[in-house]
Amino acid sequence: MSQMGSQSIQFEQAPYVLGSASIVGKKEGEGPLGDLFDMVGQDDKFGEDTWEEAESTLQKEAATMALGKADLKKEDIRYIFGGDLLGQNIATTFGLMELNIPLFGLYGACSTAGESLGLAAMAVAAGYGENVLAVTSSHFASAEKQFRFPLEYANQRPLSATWTVTGSGAFVLGKKRGKVRVSGITTGKVVDYGIKDSMNMGAAMAPAACDTIYQNLEDFQRKPEDYDRIVTGDLGTVGQEILIDLLKEKGVDISRVHMDCGIEIFDSEEQNTNAGGSGCGCSAVTLSAYFLPKLEKGIFKRILFVPTGALLSTVSFNEGQSVPGIAHGVVLEYAG
Amino acid sequence: MSQMGSQSIQFEQAPYVLGSASIVGKKEGEGPLGDLFDMVGQDDKFGEDTWEEAESTLQKEAATMALGKADLKKEDIRYIFGGDLLGQNIATTFGLMELNIPLFGLYGACSTAGESLGLAAMAVAAGYGENVLAVTSSHFASAEKQFRFPLEYANQRPLSATWTVTGSGAFVLGKKRGKVRVSGITTGKVVDYGIKDSMNMGAAMAPAACDTIYQNLEDFQRKPEDYDRIVTGDLGTVGQEILIDLLKEKGVDISRVHMDCGIEIFDSEEQNTNAGGSGCGCSAVTLSAYFLPKLEKGIFKRILFVPTGALLSTVSFNEGQSVPGIAHGVVLEYAG
Repeated sequence: MSQMGSQSIQFEQAPYVLGSASIVGKKEGEGPLGDLFDMVGQDDKFGEDTWEEAESTLQKEAATMALGKADLKKEDIRYIFGGDLLGQNIATTFGLMELNIPLFGLYGACSTAGESLGLAAMAVAAGYGENVLAVTSSHFASAEKQFRFPLEYANQRPLSATWTVTGSGAFVLGKKRGKVRVSGITTGKVVDYGIKDSMNMGAAMAPAACDTIYQNLEDFQRKPEDYDRIVTGDLGTVGQEILIDLLKEKGVDISRVHMDCGIEIFDSEEQNTNAGGSGCGCSAVTLSAYFLPKLEKGIFKRILFVPTGALLSTVSFNEGQSVPGIAHGVVLEYAG
Repeated sequence: MSQMGSQSIQFEQAPYVLGSASIVGKKEGEGPLGDLFDMVGQDDKFGEDTWEEAESTLQKEAATMALGKADLKKEDIRYIFGGDLLGQNIATTFGLMELNIPLFGLYGACSTAGESLGLAAMAVAAGYGENVLAVTSSHFASAEKQFRFPLEYANQRPLSATWTVTGSGAFVLGKKRGKVRVSGITTGKVVDYGIKDSMNMGAAMAPAACDTIYQNLEDFQRKPEDYDRIVTGDLGTVGQEILIDLLKEKGVDISRVHMDCGIEIFDSEEQNTNAGGSGCGCSAVTLSAYFLPKLEKGIFKRILFVPTGALLSTVSFNEGQSVPGIAHGVVLEYAG
């Protein structure tokens, strides 16, 4: 049976990661992981007229590059599982349209990177497709326009705020043998601690990350040390502290194995990114550029990748709603 | 092998529809299908303070009622596949949060009703869950606020415009024997004919419906008459004509079996809904209230349900982008 515990799946025929790509903006290229990305744009418009089109171009380029690295053509891909942060997923629609591949559009805020990998793995493991693609993106400028203020306002940002990553990560999952497998997933629930500060996403998302990580360990009967790393998406420094504390209250100490993509991607002090990076693109590009190569080489044998999403819109925020979180866990293993 | 042709799946262990529910607003209750819905609200706020909360309440009530009709508790449901039309899926987040069930958030505009049923069926057929839930919604007032004008403007609507349905449909899919099965799916691609008129969604979505229906017939090697009905989501009268013409150009005549939920749900002349109803909720409630009972009784043996989505946002529209469409096909059969 592939169902594990209350909300996880262990794949009997675990799909392989056959190729991945990461494309980022200028600021991400100047950060600590800058040399690891496949492509760094020198202009965050990526040759387009609008920020939204730029984000679409990021997705298209990342998907195309991942296909190339997997030595596959677009005709070899049965489904795309894709999403972004913008209202009505427009970056995904216009970015992936030309690929002409059946599309499942997803929305899980910044957790979409985990959601897309989870559903992609489910599809391949069940035999619904030989190869599928998981693609997500975010763009600093399109996200600021969507969620916050026009860039021209140059508004001040509190220290708990994160900086939306400009980037897209794409992953080809397939049946053919590769070096890394998606061995299991833990699908998250919406978790609401009543946080109402949209400038403190880390605090809003940490309870969801705690819930999913705790459930993953329960469902697979593992200890934190059974993972070389437990990697959250974009909690940043504020959220990381809360996550570690929340799990300690439940008797679980992940402090020795925890890393957060949002903390890794920027040098917060040098780059003025406050609590760290965020966005669908943050965890996706960090997985592709930093964690996957370490898994491919066997430096890491097994990681738990847990992108975290803050479920709000300007409408829900302005109407006084809280900011619930959701986190989707993906177990990635070295396949030798 | 469960893969059929280029973009379809035939389920070897086809899941059953174990229960469904439809909840609609006052205007839908006054329409031709009014008596068939499980619940009709007398006030479109459904006891809430905002339109968005009202839409969330619709989802929560529809999901709860579908569970009841399937004689299941929320603990029996392994996943929810849910979505709505609002930016960042807030109706879904706040509507389904209390159920405390792992959630895959989806966005496919009005095609989300088909996307959610497709993924739900894939999950059950693969053994990832004994029972799962597919839920979608739309609300006239929250959609007008999101996509068009404040209601207070009372702007004039062209005849090609559709009226967003206030409603939510929920479906429990499971392994246990029921009267109707989801026997297969055809997942749609993004199709763009370059339509730029956001007040003529039917024209924008018809090419996607054509693409998915044509591919479904090819993949399953069927003729239109192999279906008792081919049911699109919300093309309305303008889109219906275009769809029938487009398929005729490809040598396929669906005119004798075609129905459109958007045309059925309102009496356009009496109710001033112009080209018909639209929205994620339109196709979902019409499937639950009108088509499923006919399948359960064997009056229809097999239908192809094809919700259609118009992929735009106010941002993409204002930036001069076209309105591409997408349509996801679901084959439902009488199981005796």
